[in-house]
Amino acid sequence: MRKFNNIEGLIKSNIKAIKHFDIIKVRNSAGRYLAEDIISSIDIPPSNNSAVDGYLFNYKNFNTNIQKKFISDDEINAGDKIKKTYKLKNAIKVSTGAVIPKFFNMVIMQEKINKIDQHIICKGVIPSRWLNIRKRGEDIRKNNKVFSSGHLLRPQDIGMLASLGLTKVKVVRKVKVGLLSNGNELVDPTKKKLSHHIYDSNRYSLFAFLKKSNLKVNDQGIVNDNYKKIKNKIVLLKEKCDVIFISGGASAGNKDFIIDIIKEIGVLKFWRVSVKPGRPFGFALLNKEIPILILPGNPVACYIIFFLFGKIILNLLQGAKGFKSRYFLVKSNFVMKKKLGREEFLRGKTFIKNNQVYVNKYKKQGAGILNSLIWSNGLIRLRSNVSLVKKDSNLEFYPFSDN
Amino acid sequence: MRKFNNIEGLIKSNIKAIKHFDIIKVRNSAGRYLAEDIISSIDIPPSNNSAVDGYLFNYKNFNTNIQKKFISDDEINAGDKIKKTYKLKNAIKVSTGAVIPKFFNMVIMQEKINKIDQHIICKGVIPSRWLNIRKRGEDIRKNNKVFSSGHLLRPQDIGMLASLGLTKVKVVRKVKVGLLSNGNELVDPTKKKLSHHIYDSNRYSLFAFLKKSNLKVNDQGIVNDNYKKIKNKIVLLKEKCDVIFISGGASAGNKDFIIDIIKEIGVLKFWRVSVKPGRPFGFALLNKEIPILILPGNPVACYIIFFLFGKIILNLLQGAKGFKSRYFLVKSNFVMKKKLGREEFLRGKTFIKNNQVYVNKYKKQGAGILNSLIWSNGLIRLRSNVSLVKKDSNLEFYPFSDN
Repeated sequence: MRKFNNIEGLIKSNIKAIKHFDIIKVRNSAGRYLAEDIISSIDIPPSNNSAVDGYLFNYKNFNTNIQKKFISDDEINAGDKIKKTYKLKNAIKVSTGAVIPKFFNMVIMQEKINKIDQHIICKGVIPSRWLNIRKRGEDIRKNNKVFSSGHLLRPQDIGMLASLGLTKVKVVRKVKVGLLSNGNELVDPTKKKLSHHIYDSNRYSLFAFLKKSNLKVNDQGIVNDNYKKIKNKIVLLKEKCDVIFISGGASAGNKDFIIDIIKEIGVLKFWRVSVKPGRPFGFALLNKEIPILILPGNPVACYIIFFLFGKIILNLLQGAKGFKSRYFLVKSNFVMKKKLGREEFLRGKTFIKNNQVYVNKYKKQGAGILNSLIWSNGLIRLRSNVSLVKKDSNLEFYPFSDN
Repeated sequence: MRKFNNIEGLIKSNIKAIKHFDIIKVRNSAGRYLAEDIISSIDIPPSNNSAVDGYLFNYKNFNTNIQKKFISDDEINAGDKIKKTYKLKNAIKVSTGAVIPKFFNMVIMQEKINKIDQHIICKGVIPSRWLNIRKRGEDIRKNNKVFSSGHLLRPQDIGMLASLGLTKVKVVRKVKVGLLSNGNELVDPTKKKLSHHIYDSNRYSLFAFLKKSNLKVNDQGIVNDNYKKIKNKIVLLKEKCDVIFISGGASAGNKDFIIDIIKEIGVLKFWRVSVKPGRPFGFALLNKEIPILILPGNPVACYIIFFLFGKIILNLLQGAKGFKSRYFLVKSNFVMKKKLGREEFLRGKTFIKNNQVYVNKYKKQGAGILNSLIWSNGLIRLRSNVSLVKKDSNLEFYPFSDN
């Protein structure tokens, strides 16, 4: 049986990024991965500008003059074009974001100023050069790289692309994902089932995840325990998809054909991993480059293995080289004995107590208990060298997305 | 100035959930919020079934008999219908998921069995009643509530709905969100700008977030600093939308009209909060029930306030009563002095060192530095009573979504 620890590297070394791209509108690009480096063609901000509402001074002039300052009738607001040259001795009213004309280099906040006719008095000001001024290019400098190819575009990244004046962007084309469930016991929820059947949930969980990630899904439904039929479906998917997720039929029962089929038509990279839940999972390449993740039929194991490794595969296919599942440390609110040498993923739910983040585990951790995934907000990872979880000990927690 | 701490409660008490719903396909319902309780009409699993590949016994019979057991030629696989009544003394081969016929109550794993002709010998087995059997209804019992109205449907929840045999589900209709940016300095990236202009990024960040959350966006673009024009846009949006997010024009400059307009046409609940960045932000109700979040014009402040409070509003509108932004504790990798009495949100990036999760802050924390949001993977919250951040101290970290 494979050790869990070397699985991630093995998968990563076998995934090649998709070489095709789309050019799409920036505003529709959230969740996509950049297929180009983004170099800024402008300085941001484009000019020195005021960080506050207040009055504009020349620092040297401010320091040498008496406390009472002369102010001009002029004012500069955000969006105003600078039309004239100002005298150094004037103070000018400015609003947040207003462009700072030449020779000025300090803004005193409105709250620190008393205005008397054409003069102002400043209270409690410690003057300094560039006080309350945002300098040209302090956020982004012209010709600097802002994003690297392979970057996942989050909402704030879309804002940055807009700031750079970009309206179109080159992104990796959507991943085409093949889905298949295998098992005589499975019935699609749209059909009627008998008491020896169960409804297929795995394709539904995965489909929902993939659609939320805005990917293209080729859902081949359920296939019975028939070698030829399963093989035909996989052969069909490998010609049309960038990656295949298949669940069920990966154990060693006499109706489990997946592994034999994969060995016939592709290269099995590993099968059976020392992890709970999820042991009968495997990974292979078809046509030398199409990854297929062979997921356990069990719904909990299927989702956990997908969450841990399916996400990595999807990220790598889209060029995100450094992707790692993110975890945080939380305090255990339970005690538990554990088998040494096996990695375990418990379904956990966090809560706050005494300014600490604690985690409980679902009472039934059986791999058949889908309700454990519903109840939880993430996974607790117990590494293979752990044999005992003590109360208040630090646990690695992999949160599920909460939106 | 408002204290930050009472803002969340004030917002929550002013949001009413949308009362309209859609009935949609379960497989397309990820990211939507349930508008009904879900009660199971079936037991899951529907029958006692085997958790492993192995051999089926009657526990009592197994214990009293000799080591060598007789096995029948029969086998039961997952998805097989039980067609006959078995004799108690037989052992029967079963596969994972196979229905357990009456009178049987224990499965011995295949790995623990030696088969010799029609007999088997079990090695190292500690027999117990219901060993390796998943009992009918152990996951979900018929007539039990599985989800409550207001639940956000995540991918695993879609799997559960499928398991229950549901194909359609009643969800809150999509939130209609109004967007508007205000400021003479703003230019849409699709247009040409001069050096005293900046590209509007706020609508782009928010649009991307909202589209990713699958909501309906009414984007009214940029409006100049003109009282009447701004008012007309807001009046238009309040008739068409469930919530409005507007950025810019919320300071006290002489071109800042938003607050006066809101006071004229609605009820301002608060304005100016002791938070950095984000001070000039406000919240109001229009038509007594349409919330409007008045966001700072500054892109960093705008996104942070939206991330903290826009998400809460959107969740509450969709019926998710208990929504809270989720944080974890991470160790500070920096030292910093901070002004007492003010809440601060730093842009942070986590990393792992010595089995601990540490966080760095972006070098420039100015509210104009959009690059800080690009660099970071979440926000560090410094509460108002903090005046000093020490190295290795615990910090509250609010992660950005990573997919």
